Amino acid sequence: MTDQCIFCRIARGDIPSDMLDRDHTAFVIRDINPKASTHLLVIPLEHVTRIADFKVDGGGLLGHMMLMARDAARREGMVESGYRLVINQGPDSGQEVDHLHLHVLGGNRLGAMG
Amino acid sequence: MTDQCIFCRIARGDIPSDMLDRDHTAFVIRDINPKASTHLLVIPLEHVTRIADFKVDGGGLLGHMMLMARDAARREGMVESGYRLVINQGPDSGQEVDHLHLHVLGGNRLGAMG
Repeated sequence: MTDQCIFCRIARGDIPSDMLDRDHTAFVIRDINPKASTHLLVIPLEHVTRIADFKVDGGGLLGHMMLMARDAARREGMVESGYRLVINQGPDSGQEVDHLHLHVLGGNRLGAMG
Repeated sequence: MTDQCIFCRIARGDIPSDMLDRDHTAFVIRDINPKASTHLLVIPLEHVTRIADFKVDGGGLLGHMMLMARDAARREGMVESGYRLVINQGPDSGQEVDHLHLHVLGGNRLGAMG
């Protein structure tokens, strides 16, 4: 964790947040600058920046985050209407926070993905 | 597997393809209608439509697909420049093939994600 990272500060409770879900691995919040009618973030508690830096067991964390996203999409009633899962990595992707996070977008017809 | 599904037919070899990677779980090909300079697809061999229908152990497959995507991004030289991982699920997302697939987009500055 780092003192400067906004997601680490939310994880620690230094910044108040309305967590929709939380377990020993990650938590779910709403994006404060939503890009769709529903825009959630699944964020690991550990400060991890790049998937490329993961060790061998990183797949477990990623899979777990995907299932938390799936569960969140279900709670938001988006399973039938549809939703998009996005992970941005690095400059070309527009990644804004240097702490791994998974976007869950839905609630309206989405535009192009690239 | 289904006779009609294009990804199942590629997995079986009924439709020739240039697989960039393949293991016992999934394979990687280039999207024939790319939405970015580099646009790869990570596709499970098994015909799975919706993450919402996964059983308890589905996280393992998803995590594995994410690591295959990460490895593909590395081979394409996109770790430093950046890339985006996308899974579309259902109508609002614009999902075009009814067989789970993970998009890997990069090689240029990407647009909005929603």
